[in-house]
Amino acid sequence: MARIVMKFGGTSVADMDRIRNVARHVKREVDAGHEVAVVVSAMSGKTNELVAWTRDASPMHDAREYDAVVASGEQVTSGLLALALQNIGINARSWQGWQIPIKTDNAHGAARILEIDGSELIRRFGEGQVAVVAGFQGLGPDNRIATLGRGGSDTSAVAIAAAIKADRCDIYTDVDGVYTTDPRIEPKAKRLKKIAFEEMLEMASLGAKVLQVRSVELAMVFKVRTFVRSSFEDPDAPGMGDFLNPPGTLICDEEEILEQEVVTGIAYAKDEAQISLRRLADRPGVSAAIFGPLAEAHINVDMIVQNISEDGSKTDMTFTVPSGDVDKALKVLNDQKDKVGFDVIQNESGLVKVSVIGIGMRSHAGVAASAFKALAEKGINIKAITTSEIKISILIDGAYAELAVRTLHSVYGLDKS
Amino acid sequence: MARIVMKFGGTSVADMDRIRNVARHVKREVDAGHEVAVVVSAMSGKTNELVAWTRDASPMHDAREYDAVVASGEQVTSGLLALALQNIGINARSWQGWQIPIKTDNAHGAARILEIDGSELIRRFGEGQVAVVAGFQGLGPDNRIATLGRGGSDTSAVAIAAAIKADRCDIYTDVDGVYTTDPRIEPKAKRLKKIAFEEMLEMASLGAKVLQVRSVELAMVFKVRTFVRSSFEDPDAPGMGDFLNPPGTLICDEEEILEQEVVTGIAYAKDEAQISLRRLADRPGVSAAIFGPLAEAHINVDMIVQNISEDGSKTDMTFTVPSGDVDKALKVLNDQKDKVGFDVIQNESGLVKVSVIGIGMRSHAGVAASAFKALAEKGINIKAITTSEIKISILIDGAYAELAVRTLHSVYGLDKS
Repeated sequence: MARIVMKFGGTSVADMDRIRNVARHVKREVDAGHEVAVVVSAMSGKTNELVAWTRDASPMHDAREYDAVVASGEQVTSGLLALALQNIGINARSWQGWQIPIKTDNAHGAARILEIDGSELIRRFGEGQVAVVAGFQGLGPDNRIATLGRGGSDTSAVAIAAAIKADRCDIYTDVDGVYTTDPRIEPKAKRLKKIAFEEMLEMASLGAKVLQVRSVELAMVFKVRTFVRSSFEDPDAPGMGDFLNPPGTLICDEEEILEQEVVTGIAYAKDEAQISLRRLADRPGVSAAIFGPLAEAHINVDMIVQNISEDGSKTDMTFTVPSGDVDKALKVLNDQKDKVGFDVIQNESGLVKVSVIGIGMRSHAGVAASAFKALAEKGINIKAITTSEIKISILIDGAYAELAVRTLHSVYGLDKS
Repeated sequence: MARIVMKFGGTSVADMDRIRNVARHVKREVDAGHEVAVVVSAMSGKTNELVAWTRDASPMHDAREYDAVVASGEQVTSGLLALALQNIGINARSWQGWQIPIKTDNAHGAARILEIDGSELIRRFGEGQVAVVAGFQGLGPDNRIATLGRGGSDTSAVAIAAAIKADRCDIYTDVDGVYTTDPRIEPKAKRLKKIAFEEMLEMASLGAKVLQVRSVELAMVFKVRTFVRSSFEDPDAPGMGDFLNPPGTLICDEEEILEQEVVTGIAYAKDEAQISLRRLADRPGVSAAIFGPLAEAHINVDMIVQNISEDGSKTDMTFTVPSGDVDKALKVLNDQKDKVGFDVIQNESGLVKVSVIGIGMRSHAGVAASAFKALAEKGINIKAITTSEIKISILIDGAYAELAVRTLHSVYGLDKS
């Protein structure tokens, strides 16, 4: 007998038929003798509808009222799933964030979970009751509903798993696991059996939309073993209830991964743009003068590369931002021109960042060199490079995105199982 | 400056345009210097949708989960109206039942309000804040959301008005007041300026759907002066903000009604059926043997008339039930035939109960006789009569319903203003 958190996203609870299907997944685990807490999102489309109404009501946007409106979506799903479970003979009750309570900070609309009291849920496990928890929300210090921001239900699930000391947190979604790369680009992509928290964090940051970045961070901190698996498979298909080895990808501590590959996966992020400032004064504080105002304008700067400029006396600064933010970034920088003291500003949109990810590269030399060589052989020009301990990111022209992904996927042997 | 509760039902908040219109009504009162609490229902149609989902999820129906799902409708409206108010410069915040809290008993789905702590609302009035309260719901002793049953938002409004000692409770609805009778039947029907609580209670019980019976009971007990008025009029039309004399009908203590008419209104209830048990043994306990089992079967018995039977040794019992319950009632009675000991059972459907209502009839003789005479002159046969201090109810064939209403409306002079 184990204690399991099962999380179901919007497409998994899109209508009553899908909710009944979720109930069957839950029943399978309950019948196997496990203690179960379920975390649910709003029915797909519902959150967008509610958000649109709040915008229509007031462009000024009081985040506390936004939260009261938008959190109702998960409230509905939690009640409906509790009813659907009762209907197939399972003792279940719904829990709103304010009832448990899931205490958050006061950042309405993007709140962080501070504390969860799991004792009442645990007590009721002892009475054979399944907890159905409304995801995405908690109770702020002002005694009002606070939502965690988009995709927050993943974070709710991991946080509850940590609070109740669950053996596992199963994230049911519309894909059946984490792949070595996007299978739509490389059909030879393989589903990973395991991936380390750090690797998943890089994958998530780089646009692999399986899990929210914050939920992976939380899982890493609290060492919550997290399974990514599909809610669209038959709940009673062979192996679905296999406790030790369910179908899906386990996100876990790297120590649990015995046969560590050098490279685990290839990720990519589209619609990047590059901005270059030429012949900056090479003096302390110049970076702060550039990136401070950009941060204030909520522009997410990603890769940053600094070089000595052509004539040797000054410096060049290149960085990437999302394509949609280029105009805003250029305006911010031109407004700061006197302070920053650059000579020329250049920009290029429609770029792609391709990343090679793997904890194994910590202890292997030459991983980056293989990537550069392989891309060069295909005639793909590299515009910028950044590296970390477990990641190499390469900025290239968007037209070469798929070719680069397939090339790197092959060069590190990910095509073979 | 006064303290006002404003309640808006489902059709008044059906979409964002209607909600913006509600915001203008609220602004008018705020601009006049009043302290305002607004109580809102779910957007029209929303509650039905949520109820249908709960039924689909589980016919077994756990009322606590039903409440969690269904109460979300008012939660959404309260947040949206708070935003719409903020958008026109009014300091407003939403309140859920559990936040105030509005404490109820544990009868989920049909809970009764036990206690409301209005102190925080009053404190915030002092800071110029408008309270937007989600109607229809409170917090049960189990710390879960409890709904008050259909139409409960009227009850929420009156209860909050009592808790915050409001000077007035304005119920905004899709009609502009209470009429002497249904204007669709008698175009000469007049809007009443005032009606006593007791009279309104009889009107509401008899199918005048302006207000829920429970809310009128509550208003009567706590002497909450309650205005029924229209949300569909232009919020800024002349007279709308007239504090002493707004357009609508004031439901108030009879002492406040100086020029009391003998008869205030004519109400009617359609689809009544009559059941007669002939030649019952005339002994103690026979009424209990009949009406006990009917109550257990949730059949609402209305008029009851008992007579000595033709031969003088036994008794006849006649009573009315809603037409839809006739078959169920006949089955219950036939199952009890040995215990009850009746000889023949007869029934007739498609009847109508027409009622003459007025506090003035307490001190006036001959009110009933006028009704019987007027109906007789039109050739309308009376099947049963019941009377109370302030009401005469007459059961007739359904075909004569409109004629009877118009005849009685005229005979008591209600056609004249």
